[in-house]
Amino acid sequence: MTTIEAGALPPVTDAYTPDELALDLRWWAAANYLTAAQIYLRDNPLLREPLRPEHIKPRLLGHWGTSPGLTMLHTLLNRLIRRTGSQVLMVTGPGHGGPAVLAGAYLDGTYSEVHPAVSPDLAGLHRLVRQFSTPGGVSSHAGVHIPGSIHEGGELGYALLHAAGAAFDDPDLLVACVVGDGEAETGPLAASWRLPAFLSPERDGAVLPVLHLNGYKISGPTVLGRTSDEDVCAFLASQGWAPVVVAGDEPADVFRRLDAALAEAQATISDVQRRARAGMDVRPVAWPAIVLRTPKGWTGPETVDGVPVEGTQRSHQVPLAHVRDDAAHRAQLSEWLRSYRPDEAFDADGRLVPELAALSPRGDLRMSASPRAGGPRFRVRPLPLPDLADYALPVTTPGVLRHETTRPLGELLRDVLVRTSRADGGGDFRLFSPDETASNRLGAVFEATGRCTQLPVRPGDDHLGPQGRVLEVLSEHLCEGWLEGYTLTGRHGLFATYEAFAMVAASMVVQHAKWLQMAATEPGRSPVPSLNVLLTSTCWRNDHNGFSHQGPGLIDTVAPLAPDVTRIWFPPDANCTLVVAERCLSGRDQVNLVVVDKQQHLQYLDLDQARTHVAAGGSVWEWAGTEDPVRARTEDPDVVLAAAGDVPTMEVLAAAQLLREHVPHLRVRVVNVVDLMGLLPPGEHPAAFTAERFADLFTDDVDVVFAFHGHPRAVHPLLHGRPDVDRFHVRGFTEHGSTTTPFDMVVLNRMSRYHLVLEALRRSRRVPEGGDRLARLCQDQLDRHRAHVVEALEDLPEVRSWTWTDRTSPDRLPSQENR
Amino acid sequence: MTTIEAGALPPVTDAYTPDELALDLRWWAAANYLTAAQIYLRDNPLLREPLRPEHIKPRLLGHWGTSPGLTMLHTLLNRLIRRTGSQVLMVTGPGHGGPAVLAGAYLDGTYSEVHPAVSPDLAGLHRLVRQFSTPGGVSSHAGVHIPGSIHEGGELGYALLHAAGAAFDDPDLLVACVVGDGEAETGPLAASWRLPAFLSPERDGAVLPVLHLNGYKISGPTVLGRTSDEDVCAFLASQGWAPVVVAGDEPADVFRRLDAALAEAQATISDVQRRARAGMDVRPVAWPAIVLRTPKGWTGPETVDGVPVEGTQRSHQVPLAHVRDDAAHRAQLSEWLRSYRPDEAFDADGRLVPELAALSPRGDLRMSASPRAGGPRFRVRPLPLPDLADYALPVTTPGVLRHETTRPLGELLRDVLVRTSRADGGGDFRLFSPDETASNRLGAVFEATGRCTQLPVRPGDDHLGPQGRVLEVLSEHLCEGWLEGYTLTGRHGLFATYEAFAMVAASMVVQHAKWLQMAATEPGRSPVPSLNVLLTSTCWRNDHNGFSHQGPGLIDTVAPLAPDVTRIWFPPDANCTLVVAERCLSGRDQVNLVVVDKQQHLQYLDLDQARTHVAAGGSVWEWAGTEDPVRARTEDPDVVLAAAGDVPTMEVLAAAQLLREHVPHLRVRVVNVVDLMGLLPPGEHPAAFTAERFADLFTDDVDVVFAFHGHPRAVHPLLHGRPDVDRFHVRGFTEHGSTTTPFDMVVLNRMSRYHLVLEALRRSRRVPEGGDRLARLCQDQLDRHRAHVVEALEDLPEVRSWTWTDRTSPDRLPSQENR
Repeated sequence: MTTIEAGALPPVTDAYTPDELALDLRWWAAANYLTAAQIYLRDNPLLREPLRPEHIKPRLLGHWGTSPGLTMLHTLLNRLIRRTGSQVLMVTGPGHGGPAVLAGAYLDGTYSEVHPAVSPDLAGLHRLVRQFSTPGGVSSHAGVHIPGSIHEGGELGYALLHAAGAAFDDPDLLVACVVGDGEAETGPLAASWRLPAFLSPERDGAVLPVLHLNGYKISGPTVLGRTSDEDVCAFLASQGWAPVVVAGDEPADVFRRLDAALAEAQATISDVQRRARAGMDVRPVAWPAIVLRTPKGWTGPETVDGVPVEGTQRSHQVPLAHVRDDAAHRAQLSEWLRSYRPDEAFDADGRLVPELAALSPRGDLRMSASPRAGGPRFRVRPLPLPDLADYALPVTTPGVLRHETTRPLGELLRDVLVRTSRADGGGDFRLFSPDETASNRLGAVFEATGRCTQLPVRPGDDHLGPQGRVLEVLSEHLCEGWLEGYTLTGRHGLFATYEAFAMVAASMVVQHAKWLQMAATEPGRSPVPSLNVLLTSTCWRNDHNGFSHQGPGLIDTVAPLAPDVTRIWFPPDANCTLVVAERCLSGRDQVNLVVVDKQQHLQYLDLDQARTHVAAGGSVWEWAGTEDPVRARTEDPDVVLAAAGDVPTMEVLAAAQLLREHVPHLRVRVVNVVDLMGLLPPGEHPAAFTAERFADLFTDDVDVVFAFHGHPRAVHPLLHGRPDVDRFHVRGFTEHGSTTTPFDMVVLNRMSRYHLVLEALRRSRRVPEGGDRLARLCQDQLDRHRAHVVEALEDLPEVRSWTWTDRTSPDRLPSQENR
Repeated sequence: MTTIEAGALPPVTDAYTPDELALDLRWWAAANYLTAAQIYLRDNPLLREPLRPEHIKPRLLGHWGTSPGLTMLHTLLNRLIRRTGSQVLMVTGPGHGGPAVLAGAYLDGTYSEVHPAVSPDLAGLHRLVRQFSTPGGVSSHAGVHIPGSIHEGGELGYALLHAAGAAFDDPDLLVACVVGDGEAETGPLAASWRLPAFLSPERDGAVLPVLHLNGYKISGPTVLGRTSDEDVCAFLASQGWAPVVVAGDEPADVFRRLDAALAEAQATISDVQRRARAGMDVRPVAWPAIVLRTPKGWTGPETVDGVPVEGTQRSHQVPLAHVRDDAAHRAQLSEWLRSYRPDEAFDADGRLVPELAALSPRGDLRMSASPRAGGPRFRVRPLPLPDLADYALPVTTPGVLRHETTRPLGELLRDVLVRTSRADGGGDFRLFSPDETASNRLGAVFEATGRCTQLPVRPGDDHLGPQGRVLEVLSEHLCEGWLEGYTLTGRHGLFATYEAFAMVAASMVVQHAKWLQMAATEPGRSPVPSLNVLLTSTCWRNDHNGFSHQGPGLIDTVAPLAPDVTRIWFPPDANCTLVVAERCLSGRDQVNLVVVDKQQHLQYLDLDQARTHVAAGGSVWEWAGTEDPVRARTEDPDVVLAAAGDVPTMEVLAAAQLLREHVPHLRVRVVNVVDLMGLLPPGEHPAAFTAERFADLFTDDVDVVFAFHGHPRAVHPLLHGRPDVDRFHVRGFTEHGSTTTPFDMVVLNRMSRYHLVLEALRRSRRVPEGGDRLARLCQDQLDRHRAHVVEALEDLPEVRSWTWTDRTSPDRLPSQENR
């Protein structure tokens, strides 16, 4: 057997000799042994003593069922790498595959390199089995603790998405992705089979799905497990795959056939890519895929207490459950474990015997040591961001210029795409969106690249082609999952989406935040680019789409997650959006929500002011309030008006202006918050405002009328722990919506300028002359608005709510910009 | 043409005569006219005056692209109903299909019956066009405002799920489900094609998918739009469908072929069902499906300003955008609208001419008037719930009995299944779960029914068969969506799932709550059974599955939604769970989250106490505190310990016991909250505790240490508005998790009994003698626990955290039950 180094990729022509097969089967047995040993043993790791109850874990938490297939694939991918020098990443979709993947990482030496205490000897083996599914130890999924993993199995359908994200723009990479037949029933996985419509043979790596049909979930058969080979293959073939079936239960036979299938797949992929990269027309590509049918719990106990276990749902978790109490079960476990002949795999010191150790690829070619997968040799190229000054809006006076807030961001992203583009059409930055790039006013990116499709392009198509770096697909799951895989392998990106429908991928955002949180303390894991989600087309401005499109729920989802990895940004205007984007795009290890609407909005800050404002997280906007700047240093205002979000900012500024004009002696402070996490008490979040800073903004005891972009009650939990939180009166989106005008939206949710003025007057420490008159004026405006809407409904006159407010609103802050 | 009443279902053999076709094309033109008129016009609804700018809406918000296909299908389904008497429901998946579906409901008279002001005459036509996409009017999706709709199009992939839910257990129903090629890219839709694996020809109705490939999303082509007919058909066929393709752009031709396809589909379905119901073996069924390729924006402007529009993405929204300002565009609009010959469809009074009116089916056979779809003739059979006394646990002393809390619920559900079963295997109650029914301790249901599959059953399968009424599929999307469709058509059910992965379907729960909220004020809509979601296998007891499985996020998602339709329940034990379940299962128009773990837990209340407790929403548990009952009426306690959730309840009770034993003179009140919404201030939720009741529980000013099941900051927003909320000190799940012990989970998240005691001592008004000693004891216990865990990690000794706490914990409340 020869080990071939990366770079030279000869076709695989040699046969699988009996000696090679025998060795691989021994390596497989060693991996299976370590898998079962992790699940069952706390001591006596090589069974050199008779198995006694105290050697066995008190709680058996691992899952055996999926493991032998994973170890087989690991064995044979190692062989493929040895023979071809392929750079391979393995993504393990099935849940509870952890011990199997960890066994592979231990056998190839990577695990001990990252965790020296789990050494390649008897002491290390003891620790290996001891730590699994134990307090303070490691979990049973193929999670962040396993070197080479970018995917925690059991994440419910995201495996093929993460695999695709890893393959994008990495032309030399082959991602082998095991898809379980349980997860194959999920929505995200079902949709992700459409990958061939998006994967470029020229500039991207390849994804080789291994659909592992072991037939059962926890307690019943899977849909695909009971579907014929013919239908499974037709299902895959119709979506751009060229599947082959490998099925059986006789190890040597299955090994031979899976080996041949892998070699054939690798050869086909190499050939397609070579021809495509030589400029030949290879589309439509039928990408290799493998359908693997092996028994659940393969090589485990066939029957237990007379009941069939191997090949049934009863081997999903542990095939033998009572091994501590039941001597017969324990004897059966001992016999089962010894069937893997651990003494032939490990020497007297517990070291893997040389002929098996030689089966692992070397160095970075080990899948567990892949430099793509976040390990020690993982590298992230900093994103070459241009100078924001080239995109900033020229704001000289706050609230005069009106602009689509996301449009300058689109221009910035265009130039990021230009600066990151490679000759082969790839790069290390991508934009992901459910068909909304132009709609979200990010259309400038199409000056730099197009939308990606591998399907036929027709005349009249708009910026569409096979090397486009904008991935538009009407699935938030796909956008989110692809971006996750892309950033976990060290590249950069942005997922831009309608705010309401970002909730579709909420569970993925949660799981990604958990991954980042765990990765931060995991030895050998390096920082990865942040996951940046732009929530635009927000609740306040989906007046045209109606109530179903009005939902700021993702803010509620992200806010309670681990503070070290989450940030929620509310830039009030375009220049702040640019500054926030710069932070997010150059950031690491965070989930950033950036909430900003795409429509025309008033602009307030120039670039320098925006930089200062965003760096502070929140500021007093002195120009908008009525405090005397000198007196303000020692004297509190009568009331504070605060805003987070673009529409709330406009309403607060309009309210402040009404107060300034009608009650000029009222001391009003206007505060704008851009970094929501600043509100959290010190110690609860790295971005939390210090107590002094918080008091500078909000005082210690003056009432605060707070206009918030999202659900108003999302603010209260952040404030808890700050002084006297009862004084915060938050208005926001209270689930009142419809197809209506932007102004009616803020009225329906009681966040309009008039509501804010009324609340400010009610809460202010004192109300100077003019206050009552202003209150009547505001109430009158609201009554008139309501009358107009009711009238519009019942008598079908002109609907004047689009225009009437302009007549009374301040000059600098006209209320309705979307006529 | 003869109209055939329901009940007689002869095969369709007669040809489509030229006269019939001409009439149907005229009906279609009328529907298209009304669709475009709704999008564009505010006045002059039949164009009896020359089109002037003031006749046109100021903002054009509707979408034309998808509409002509929907009206065509409506026309031809009407014909099918006329000829066969079939009972048909139409589910419209594509977004912005509202005006088209509404046009149909207006033309068949239903809309005017429900909304008399939108009368079948000129005044009604005026109102019809005026109200669309106007403040106070109706939105552009096929939402709750459209009679006969159970699905708001544009809900991102849930159409086929709602259709399936409607068809389950309704053997005479045919659900025609239009699936757009945009939504077909979503995960939920992709997974929902697997319906044939679950749909019984004996007891269920049929779903006829019409995959409408008009080729484009907002700005680019769809994946299926650019996929060959062969691949689209293979994709469907491989999943149990028998697709036929109908494609074209010549109306009469497409009408003829779609009509034939519908007739053929109906005949095939009838035949399969008839044979199956006669006991013949029909499996595997290949269910008819139609692939319909027609141009986007069909019959609209072919080109605008020289650019192609019909048949491209440019007809997605409005084909002519500047009709108010641009006379040429306005003339083109006028010409386009007049091409539908409105004067031949409506008489001088604006009434549909008799020969077209005659094309609608009669009465309940109109799709818009279907008694299945929530309209005035919709009926819900109350669920025949048995007496809870038959399932209640015999609790005589609180905290002695230990039981799996969800198990009695499983026994109750078993008997609900028995009481609702029909001879044909159907019923009006179903259980939906991602393969976790038995795992969640609801296995008793399998004494009444089985898991449902239409795929082959093999020896050794566990309670699996074609007429099972438990739907297990590893997709929260499918479970949630099927249940939504099932309840929206008047039947009852429960979705039981792992708490963390319920987040997968979070966006669906949000959309369903919005639907219920809107339905409550919609004329003609009747109450539907509540959507009941059981969150079990909770964060505190996924110690074996690890951090990815620990997530109470759905609580954060649901809490901010409309108070009238949302409830979140935290039954502390099995008997409370039964009482809560009884309320939820007999409830209407709500989304109920019931959060309770499946593992063994201590039991506290007998059935009568549980009834009282749940009815109150929260109570003082006097037996657990140390207040003197008489003095408590006039005198406040020193500190309040409150809990919501099973694990928090146990920790609070253990903390109270420690306080009672070590600081007996401290006056401790113990409060248990089961209805979380009770915390909201009066007026903010129908379940809110009155101010008096709140004070009875929590006093007005005593500090409260609150142990909460979910993210602790979820409680603060609810409390805002109650007196002095700074005094509430909430502990809960703070995103610290791992594979560990149950006790370590509460320690990691600082919610353990010892943390609660320390917090109570810190917050208490006074600390009598013994307090310092107890604080040291608690701190010592926590230090010892930490030392054990660290030790376990670093030196691999016995991990004693499983057992050590028992040595010091109270007898009645041993801390660790899962050894």
